[in-house]
Amino acid sequence: MKTVVLKFGGTSVGNIDRIKKVCKIIATYKKKKYNVVVISSAMSGVTNDLVNKSKSLSNSFDLAEYDALLSTGEQVSCALIAGRLNHIGLKSRSWLSWQLPIVTEGNHSGARINKININELNRYIKNGGIPVVTGFQGINKNYRITTIGRSGSDATAIMLAKYIKAEECIIFTDVEGVYTTDPRQHKKAKKIKKIFYDEMLEMASLGSKVMQPTSIQDAKLNEIDIKVQSSFASKSGTLITNSKKSFSDQIITGISSTKNDAKITIVGVKDRPGVAASIFKPLSKNLINVDMVVQNISQNGKNTDLTFTIKSEDLKKTENLIKENKSISYKKLSFDKNVSKVSIIGVGMITTPGITYRMFQALASKKINILVISTSEIKISVLVSAKHVKKAIASLHKEFKLD
Amino acid sequence: MKTVVLKFGGTSVGNIDRIKKVCKIIATYKKKKYNVVVISSAMSGVTNDLVNKSKSLSNSFDLAEYDALLSTGEQVSCALIAGRLNHIGLKSRSWLSWQLPIVTEGNHSGARINKININELNRYIKNGGIPVVTGFQGINKNYRITTIGRSGSDATAIMLAKYIKAEECIIFTDVEGVYTTDPRQHKKAKKIKKIFYDEMLEMASLGSKVMQPTSIQDAKLNEIDIKVQSSFASKSGTLITNSKKSFSDQIITGISSTKNDAKITIVGVKDRPGVAASIFKPLSKNLINVDMVVQNISQNGKNTDLTFTIKSEDLKKTENLIKENKSISYKKLSFDKNVSKVSIIGVGMITTPGITYRMFQALASKKINILVISTSEIKISVLVSAKHVKKAIASLHKEFKLD
Repeated sequence: MKTVVLKFGGTSVGNIDRIKKVCKIIATYKKKKYNVVVISSAMSGVTNDLVNKSKSLSNSFDLAEYDALLSTGEQVSCALIAGRLNHIGLKSRSWLSWQLPIVTEGNHSGARINKININELNRYIKNGGIPVVTGFQGINKNYRITTIGRSGSDATAIMLAKYIKAEECIIFTDVEGVYTTDPRQHKKAKKIKKIFYDEMLEMASLGSKVMQPTSIQDAKLNEIDIKVQSSFASKSGTLITNSKKSFSDQIITGISSTKNDAKITIVGVKDRPGVAASIFKPLSKNLINVDMVVQNISQNGKNTDLTFTIKSEDLKKTENLIKENKSISYKKLSFDKNVSKVSIIGVGMITTPGITYRMFQALASKKINILVISTSEIKISVLVSAKHVKKAIASLHKEFKLD
Repeated sequence: MKTVVLKFGGTSVGNIDRIKKVCKIIATYKKKKYNVVVISSAMSGVTNDLVNKSKSLSNSFDLAEYDALLSTGEQVSCALIAGRLNHIGLKSRSWLSWQLPIVTEGNHSGARINKININELNRYIKNGGIPVVTGFQGINKNYRITTIGRSGSDATAIMLAKYIKAEECIIFTDVEGVYTTDPRQHKKAKKIKKIFYDEMLEMASLGSKVMQPTSIQDAKLNEIDIKVQSSFASKSGTLITNSKKSFSDQIITGISSTKNDAKITIVGVKDRPGVAASIFKPLSKNLINVDMVVQNISQNGKNTDLTFTIKSEDLKKTENLIKENKSISYKKLSFDKNVSKVSIIGVGMITTPGITYRMFQALASKKINILVISTSEIKISVLVSAKHVKKAIASLHKEFKLD
């Protein structure tokens, strides 16, 4: 008998009618004779409401209490789902993280799942029951409730799928899957049928918000195939996997773009060993995330130009930190607030020569100027003026036959 | 060092400002060098909202899931209180019922506390910490969450006070204490300073809604003194106790009255052994609660008149059940929908003769007709026309020097 883990996100269980719908979806898997394990997030809005309550009582709310507070969200949704499943004639019960238990390690609000005890769960499944397990949480060695970061319910689903050796792990959400590029940016965006973990990791970290990078990393490490699909429309979603079976020979799988990036260039920096570190140390200390970095070749061996990108909201702070930095000298600081990073992603590019050329050619043909370039094994990113993003995506989407 | 249990009801923690207020109250006890243990109910409205959610998913919602669902209410309020106490510089943590654990026996939604493990709690208190414990819930031997009935947080407070050998157990609520009679019925009603458990039990079962009879019974059995006071006004409340110290020589402690009672008289019932049982059996089967019962003396040894009271809402059903009852014969059925029971309560009446006379005399002087009389050791109840209730309370309140 095949075992499937079904995970439902906050919008999927966002109100009573949606919980009824979710229970119908669960019933279809039971009808197909699957062993079914359900993981649920909190009903959408609930977690934010609890966060606001804590904030109105303290600007540094105790993290252990924060976790005890937030974990009630999943407890409510899981009890409601289990109650409804019983109502429609399916044997079901909720399992709170301490009841299994799901054991975590690490700090409150940012713990990681260390071990899941599945003995009782397995017995229940074998007797035809549907366990409904609270996502996003566990207990630490002191028997305190810990949460594993926002979107942590995905991590719960993936780790549980690993422990119970599930054949499938389906993440139900409010989108139909992963797209070749953001459908709001480009109308011809298409749903991706299959995507490799590494590609999905790049997509996720570049802003495709379907799943958190850490969850994808968990799935990759544990070789759990994940299907992402909508709980609202009964359409096939996107399979995230490492299996090469029936992958098409598509070279590029998707195109991502960022918003609100800013570019800073420090002109005429005195070139000496460790100068980049001197520049970035105060930024790192101030939690400013530096993304693309390019250092131009020093012309005379004495001076160099350093260009890097940050989030626009950090621009002012960054400017001040550089100006206050006594350990560096430079000729000029220049800024560009309206830039965006456009990336093409695909494991196919490893074995296919000429991808970089095709990308630059496609952009050049649309007269889009490339400001910075950065590459990894399965990704090429270019920085362009924000006003060119849509055009850039369209031209690349067409060039790499994603239309 | 004195140990005090402070229990806060739903309205006392009904919103963020009230939670802040409650934490200030807790701080005053800590300042007085008390060991403090806090019990909290769910924020008012939360439990009803959860109940409604369950009802909209099933008209027979699984009781184990119902308990898992409802128990989140106290978890939220306790985490918020503990977080706030930390914020104002007091060492505190929430304790969920499974973390102690509070072990219950009996059915879901109607369990009773069997045992509380207080080892960790005691260590924490000795180190100056304030534990904030979820009321209203526990876990059963299967590690499932159980709830102990509405108002069950009082029971948690009383049982915890017993286990940790607390000197005081204070129930904070939205009234200032127990009154000699309902202040809405009689303006001269006064707050009672001290009341015996047994008197409070009679007051509670007669409709004084400050505390549930079962909680008072728990306190009585375990000899826990309870103070009931307001979390809104800093006034002294009512002490419920068995201690005779500094009790005044008041004979009557309070006056209760009921609403929505109905009187039924079955005239000319054939008098034979077991006839009353034949009449009440179908009522009991249909969960109709019979209160006062009077059987008149049979005139000729053959027939008798039977009078009893029920809640008005059960009148139609009761009438039908009597008419359908083939095991009895009678001449006539008569009803009075607009009657009320007025009771005087006080342990003093055991040792004081003439109380019954004074009661009847006071009512007679106001031309109030007594329909039925029923007495116990510490209570005398009379049934009167509903229109006379206010007048009856006023005359008795004056007669027994409660004004």
